[in-house]
Amino acid sequence: MHACVSYANTSVCAGRCAFACMGVCLCVGNGWIHESIMRGSVSFNPAQIILTAGATPAIEALSFCLADPGNAFLVPSPYYPGFDRDIKLRTGIELIPVHCRSSNNFSLSIAALEREYKQAKKRGIKVRAVLLSNPSNPVGNILHRETLYDLLSFVTDKNLHLISDEVYAGSTYGSEEFASIAELLDTGVFDNSRVHIIYGLSKDLSLSGFRVGAIYSYNENVIAAVSKLTRFCGISLPTQHLLVSMLSDTKFIEEYLKVNRERLAQMYALFVEGLKHLGVECFKSSGGFYCWVDMSKFLKSYSVKGELELWENILNVAKVVVTPGASCHCIEPGWFRCCFTTVTERDVPLVMKRISKVLKDHKARQ
Amino acid sequence: MHACVSYANTSVCAGRCAFACMGVCLCVGNGWIHESIMRGSVSFNPAQIILTAGATPAIEALSFCLADPGNAFLVPSPYYPGFDRDIKLRTGIELIPVHCRSSNNFSLSIAALEREYKQAKKRGIKVRAVLLSNPSNPVGNILHRETLYDLLSFVTDKNLHLISDEVYAGSTYGSEEFASIAELLDTGVFDNSRVHIIYGLSKDLSLSGFRVGAIYSYNENVIAAVSKLTRFCGISLPTQHLLVSMLSDTKFIEEYLKVNRERLAQMYALFVEGLKHLGVECFKSSGGFYCWVDMSKFLKSYSVKGELELWENILNVAKVVVTPGASCHCIEPGWFRCCFTTVTERDVPLVMKRISKVLKDHKARQ
Repeated sequence: MHACVSYANTSVCAGRCAFACMGVCLCVGNGWIHESIMRGSVSFNPAQIILTAGATPAIEALSFCLADPGNAFLVPSPYYPGFDRDIKLRTGIELIPVHCRSSNNFSLSIAALEREYKQAKKRGIKVRAVLLSNPSNPVGNILHRETLYDLLSFVTDKNLHLISDEVYAGSTYGSEEFASIAELLDTGVFDNSRVHIIYGLSKDLSLSGFRVGAIYSYNENVIAAVSKLTRFCGISLPTQHLLVSMLSDTKFIEEYLKVNRERLAQMYALFVEGLKHLGVECFKSSGGFYCWVDMSKFLKSYSVKGELELWENILNVAKVVVTPGASCHCIEPGWFRCCFTTVTERDVPLVMKRISKVLKDHKARQ
Repeated sequence: MHACVSYANTSVCAGRCAFACMGVCLCVGNGWIHESIMRGSVSFNPAQIILTAGATPAIEALSFCLADPGNAFLVPSPYYPGFDRDIKLRTGIELIPVHCRSSNNFSLSIAALEREYKQAKKRGIKVRAVLLSNPSNPVGNILHRETLYDLLSFVTDKNLHLISDEVYAGSTYGSEEFASIAELLDTGVFDNSRVHIIYGLSKDLSLSGFRVGAIYSYNENVIAAVSKLTRFCGISLPTQHLLVSMLSDTKFIEEYLKVNRERLAQMYALFVEGLKHLGVECFKSSGGFYCWVDMSKFLKSYSVKGELELWENILNVAKVVVTPGASCHCIEPGWFRCCFTTVTERDVPLVMKRISKVLKDHKARQ
């Protein structure tokens, strides 16, 4: 258990360069971008930040430290399909979807978490953590403070870790207010040491090519262990240098985030409106880059097979890339994730025209 | 077996950015630094290069693709102590040292390889590959062409992979000529698909902070599989951009490598000379950043314990950092790796003075 934590306590002698101290490089004196996003409602301690070459290795390294092969994380679904690859592939950890449903606005139910936890236990699987994305990818909803409190109670009660992937924290555009799990921990009611936040600059600052991610952990042993793993995913120094200048310009960052949010809101509205004209409804998202789209009424059969058939036609006939709900482990067929930030405003009518053709064809052949 | 190879054949749907094509970015039109080092004696195909954020993740990712947990690699020892951490920690692969001895100039013996291979087989351990560093870290010797031929015959005979870590390929300074394993493969006699080369810019171009490593593989399946793992260790784009300019300037690179070699030779000679004055002999190295130093006659007891005692005094009394041979799995006590590139010429007398004091003390108390 906690394989890397014990590793972190051994000192290994090696000739190649070490990156032990690079974690502090970006935050000391320059603030942390997540702090800008939280607008002063919570403060972050630089000593608790571990930097990695993107959020992808961040979540993998963290997972390596929290669980052994064969252990499991509970993940509210639909969830980001990359989790399957990023976490399961090399760590041997299992992900158990905890299904959220349209009838409940795809909200997380603690009862469902409890159910899956018990099921896993019955099957002899050790659950180690709950992993969630907030704002959620793919649904785009934001977890209410009450749900976060309930989650903290749940993980405390079951002695689990809580991983909060907040890579879209600054990419909100709806009326709902985003609260990081960090805000709730400031109250001092909960055992912070079981909470870990994933962040990155790929989404909120559109810097995916820079490969900058971070783990913010409240657990000293985890910080020590993950730090050792950064030798596999260090951020290059020229990039760090560039970022220090960029992040030091707080006025620019604030303005960027503001304009980015406005543009996300515009594109989201445009996309939702376009789909509405085709008779397609979207979930009311508040954050992230995706519309969560209900095309269930266009399925030839209400099943994963029917969903993948429609997906294939959207891909190969309409030439539009969307993500089928099935690959996000959505329990209800017919939902699709559409990324509205990869197209320009001018492209939207063309995209809609193409999708429309496929949907008409599906409707006609039903 | 070959866990990641099969993974590479499945297509996974994900929202986050992919780096599948970044591998070609640095080499197309710009040549590859390794090619400059080989001075035209061998050509490299850009499609066979996979770039990673340093040689460390390169070797880890490659290992993940070549073996399953519990499998083993045979590694001529003394070997780079970082291999233990970089390979064993997350992959679960075992490293089996194949001892090279001072009486044989620390040369690799195929008979010893054969012996360890058979031993492993007897113990039910599946050997997957032979891993070597050439020029060797820590010894600094260069493998003869004949040994490389014998090695290729050995791995072919046993159906193993061969991983050649050539991160010091451009950092040679002795009279011995370095030959990459790639040169021998150009003859077409051997099955190339079992050979993989590790390279990086940290050593030959002193760019460790840039985090740029590479795998050069002759195996299509391995290339496909490792490419998928680069999402955990991508090189940031600003750094790639900088490197393209740097590597395009072939005149600069050639001049840099030439001057670097000259300086390595100077520092090596200075260090060896300094140690000689203390009555300490070094192995005759030809490449890399290290003197491989025989201090066995200063051990209070001819054992690992005696070696570590001397090491502790050099560290804590002399305040000089050296690597004990034991951490390189050297079978003979009393050898130490001394990095001569971390000090300036001016520092050498001080370093020798400090070491001298410890050695005198050890001699006196023997």
